[in-house]
Amino acid sequence: FSDAVGEVIAVGADVTRVAVGDRVASLFAQTWVDGKPTREINRSCLGEAVEGVLAEEVVLPEQGVVKIPEYLSFEEAATLPCAGVTAWNSLFGDGQLKPGDNVLLLGTGGVSIFALQFCKMMGANVIITSSSNEKLEKAKALGASFGINYNDEPKWHKKVLEYTNGNGADRVIEVGGAGTLSKSIMSAGVGGMISLIGILSGAGDVNPIPVLMNSIQIRGIFVGSRAMFENMNRAISLHQIKPVIDQVFSFENVKEALKHMESGSHFGKIVVRK
Amino acid sequence: FSDAVGEVIAVGADVTRVAVGDRVASLFAQTWVDGKPTREINRSCLGEAVEGVLAEEVVLPEQGVVKIPEYLSFEEAATLPCAGVTAWNSLFGDGQLKPGDNVLLLGTGGVSIFALQFCKMMGANVIITSSSNEKLEKAKALGASFGINYNDEPKWHKKVLEYTNGNGADRVIEVGGAGTLSKSIMSAGVGGMISLIGILSGAGDVNPIPVLMNSIQIRGIFVGSRAMFENMNRAISLHQIKPVIDQVFSFENVKEALKHMESGSHFGKIVVRK
Amino acid sequence: FSDAVGEVIAVGADVTRVAVGDRVASLFAQTWVDGKPTREINRSCLGEAVEGVLAEEVVLPEQGVVKIPEYLSFEEAATLPCAGVTAWNSLFGDGQLKPGDNVLLLGTGGVSIFALQFCKMMGANVIITSSSNEKLEKAKALGASFGINYNDEPKWHKKVLEYTNGNGADRVIEVGGAGTLSKSIMSAGVGGMISLIGILSGAGDVNPIPVLMNSIQIRGIFVGSRAMFENMNRAISLHQIKPVIDQVFSFENVKEALKHMESGSHFGKIVVRK
Amino acid sequence: FSDAVGEVIAVGADVTRVAVGDRVASLFAQTWVDGKPTREINRSCLGEAVEGVLAEEVVLPEQGVVKIPEYLSFEEAATLPCAGVTAWNSLFGDGQLKPGDNVLLLGTGGVSIFALQFCKMMGANVIITSSSNEKLEKAKALGASFGINYNDEPKWHKKVLEYTNGNGADRVIEVGGAGTLSKSIMSAGVGGMISLIGILSGAGDVNPIPVLMNSIQIRGIFVGSRAMFENMNRAISLHQIKPVIDQVFSFENVKEALKHMESGSHFGKIVVRK
Repeated sequence: FSDAVGEVIAVGADVTRVAVGDRVASLFAQTWVDGKPTREINRSCLGEAVEGVLAEEVVLPEQGVVKIPEYLSFEEAATLPCAGVTAWNSLFGDGQLKPGDNVLLLGTGGVSIFALQFCKMMGANVIITSSSNEKLEKAKALGASFGINYNDEPKWHKKVLEYTNGNGADRVIEVGGAGTLSKSIMSAGVGGMISLIGILSGAGDVNPIPVLMNSIQIRGIFVGSRAMFENMNRAISLHQIKPVIDQVFSFENVKEALKHMESGSHFGKIVVRK
Repeated sequence: FSDAVGEVIAVGADVTRVAVGDRVASLFAQTWVDGKPTREINRSCLGEAVEGVLAEEVVLPEQGVVKIPEYLSFEEAATLPCAGVTAWNSLFGDGQLKPGDNVLLLGTGGVSIFALQFCKMMGANVIITSSSNEKLEKAKALGASFGINYNDEPKWHKKVLEYTNGNGADRVIEVGGAGTLSKSIMSAGVGGMISLIGILSGAGDVNPIPVLMNSIQIRGIFVGSRAMFENMNRAISLHQIKPVIDQVFSFENVKEALKHMESGSHFGKIVVRK
Repeated sequence: FSDAVGEVIAVGADVTRVAVGDRVASLFAQTWVDGKPTREINRSCLGEAVEGVLAEEVVLPEQGVVKIPEYLSFEEAATLPCAGVTAWNSLFGDGQLKPGDNVLLLGTGGVSIFALQFCKMMGANVIITSSSNEKLEKAKALGASFGINYNDEPKWHKKVLEYTNGNGADRVIEVGGAGTLSKSIMSAGVGGMISLIGILSGAGDVNPIPVLMNSIQIRGIFVGSRAMFENMNRAISLHQIKPVIDQVFSFENVKEALKHMESGSHFGKIVVRK
Repeated sequence: FSDAVGEVIAVGADVTRVAVGDRVASLFAQTWVDGKPTREINRSCLGEAVEGVLAEEVVLPEQGVVKIPEYLSFEEAATLPCAGVTAWNSLFGDGQLKPGDNVLLLGTGGVSIFALQFCKMMGANVIITSSSNEKLEKAKALGASFGINYNDEPKWHKKVLEYTNGNGADRVIEVGGAGTLSKSIMSAGVGGMISLIGILSGAGDVNPIPVLMNSIQIRGIFVGSRAMFENMNRAISLHQIKPVIDQVFSFENVKEALKHMESGSHFGKIVVRK
């Protein structure tokens, strides 16, 4: 648990970035201001070495918080620090995504649905997978061009090639982990980029031959920087993008929320209200 | 004159990139396939050292042509090789533009109007200048957020700061040249990028202090590569973007077309039909 | 077999890039001029779809050859088109390497020894592995700071962490393939880059967790572009770097050369003289 | 006055980056940790809005100091925060410099001499200008390939073209400002980069035509980030590079030091000892 949003109730003497009454969110990696991640940054992550934020009041340094957009409720803004920032980093963190690019999204969890909304905002073409036709329809309603039911199409990478005139995806948002990585690699085009986010399906056998023959890049994504968070806030405010919330649980029902997440039956983010 | 579109009427024995009957456009820099420009590439420009293309039939190497999108007429596609590719390069050639960025466009000529359409496609926020309120309204109809009449507001850079919460523009598409460059520099934010395209207003006095104090980058833009052209075609086809044509002139009225261009009264591109 | 060097014995009418008498090398990917690789470029590789060059005379388009440095013999220059360009791409192709970076090189084959020479040229710090102490000494004589005998140190990634103050390598030149990839990943620091080149040891189990927790990038390398080849030639000419040749075989002894390469007992490149 | 080095004499309760007794230097832009500069970063500069450091004791946040290399004296390390970091940023801040590149350095002040040392470290080829043949000889002793006396050669950009086979410089470290900028632009090759640092010679007339015809980039440099400072320290420690100090003045003789700097007769950095 590392996402928190709330109101500033007190500030130290020299604090200039925020004031009492501001609505803010915590940064996941407390010292990742901008630029490349480092060991020092990794050690500053909430819920890792640093204490997590499943609490009613927390103390954070001013450098570790970000103001949240006014048009969002606390529940909506609570989806931003992890899922939102991760999706932003996975698409824009390397500066290679262009309008018209074909982006493959795996599944319909919080990161994938943010990525879908961001892709639409910036003119990319979205292909999305799911085990549920109903969710594929929801994703198309949000702007996906193609949906692939991976239960019906176990060789889903072939559908990706088909939907991209044989070229493969320019970008894969890989939330599945090693279990899907081999097929993600085969879905990617020459020079394609795989944003590696998820570890849900554990380690797995990876064939490096297509990676090098097709000059594919794989980029490990671990949330993102404060600059990414602030850039995301500006962009979603301009476009008035609303995070897609699957369900809001009360503070007492945390266990239920975790169970719901593990079931994999959600579309968008699960939020716990304090 | 260096833009040409037409139908392939014959191909050499080993040609594989195009076939007879294909609708193609010429590359401005015949050997700029991808990557960085070079002296060799500069020497291959049509209408410069290489013979221009204001003719009914031309011979070009297969590496120097690009297929044009099916949904565009020849007149529409004729706007792509110079104005379209230049606008694409100026926005996407450096990989730094993000959704939500504030982009300042100077004037309503061919490059600026393409840039406006591309900015809308990728989620950037557009501020545009003109001496005509009528053209500013047209630009807003195409999606510009703010219009500045520089006759009414000679210190238009102050309006840009106002429209960007004092931060300045993330990107300036500078088609005016040295005459406007000083104000473009003052319009740009810390870390901002100026895509320098135009030379209309000749040389001028430039103050380097804000360039370095604000870590501003200035990038000279000289059309673009074949890869940019092809990426642009894919993007505009996905979004079915129609080039904005001010007026089409017949082959006989070339002089009139040139006069109209010099008058500066156009909105979008001027095309000469063969 | 895709490397060839020789003298130009005839040119077509419009050829300007080379003249009769020029000493040239073939590009591996015949149409990769600069920028990103593409499907079209992949299809133009010598020895793949296109006919290889283990022959006395070959016909190549002018775009597909590069002049070789004057100070190199044909045998020396024959090492450049594959091993040299691959090493250059793996270090400089992404623009992230800085002086002072810690670079891990696996083994002492042609690519690794070129990478060692290039690292020394640009001020990086080299750690190299081998199964032979004798080769490690040779590598140190060429400028490597640390040598690791992976027979003596099966957990060689721990030695890499030790030699880098616990930070891990900034760059790994991974020529081993999936068999060593897991340890290469554990050798890399937060934000580290793995240039994935080799497929010698086949597919293997890869754990994605450290890739994402440490924001590691993996970049598949498939030789490189003509611009890289030419930039490399300029750099090695300035520094008068001599390719390290393990052994030269005659045209008749090709099979012996291949056997020697498979034995893995070489240090530097194996060359076949025509 | 914004460079300071010294020993840590006390730390706050939560400070982890430094300990009492550490030898540290101040960051010029106190909040520029990594990544792009921002307005907020600009406002945190020492000697600008924030109080300068020409004092015996200063209080700085732990994020705003960097440990200095052990092999350097305080006098030597005092040259790093401004001149050293500026030179590092101007060469490596954009990730485009490669071994073999031709770099033009203007003059022999602190930044230029650091840039010369860094160029040698990373395998670039140096051309340097001065009004003094004696200083040109000193610069050659440090590794410059070519020296140009701009008094003898007022059209020094033509010498740069001559020394680069007509290609022009890949990089210009422009410390002179607008007074030299026009010639720097004419010295740069197609796709060349000008790192704009200095404002010594004030504003001036700039012709944008070669900037765009040759796709030249101009990048304003305003010192650099903490990550750059730390990367520089690692690199110079590996190569045991000693800053070139022109003269050390005592705290009482500050005015004399300023006069010496304005005279322009120095080679390397001027240091004031506390």
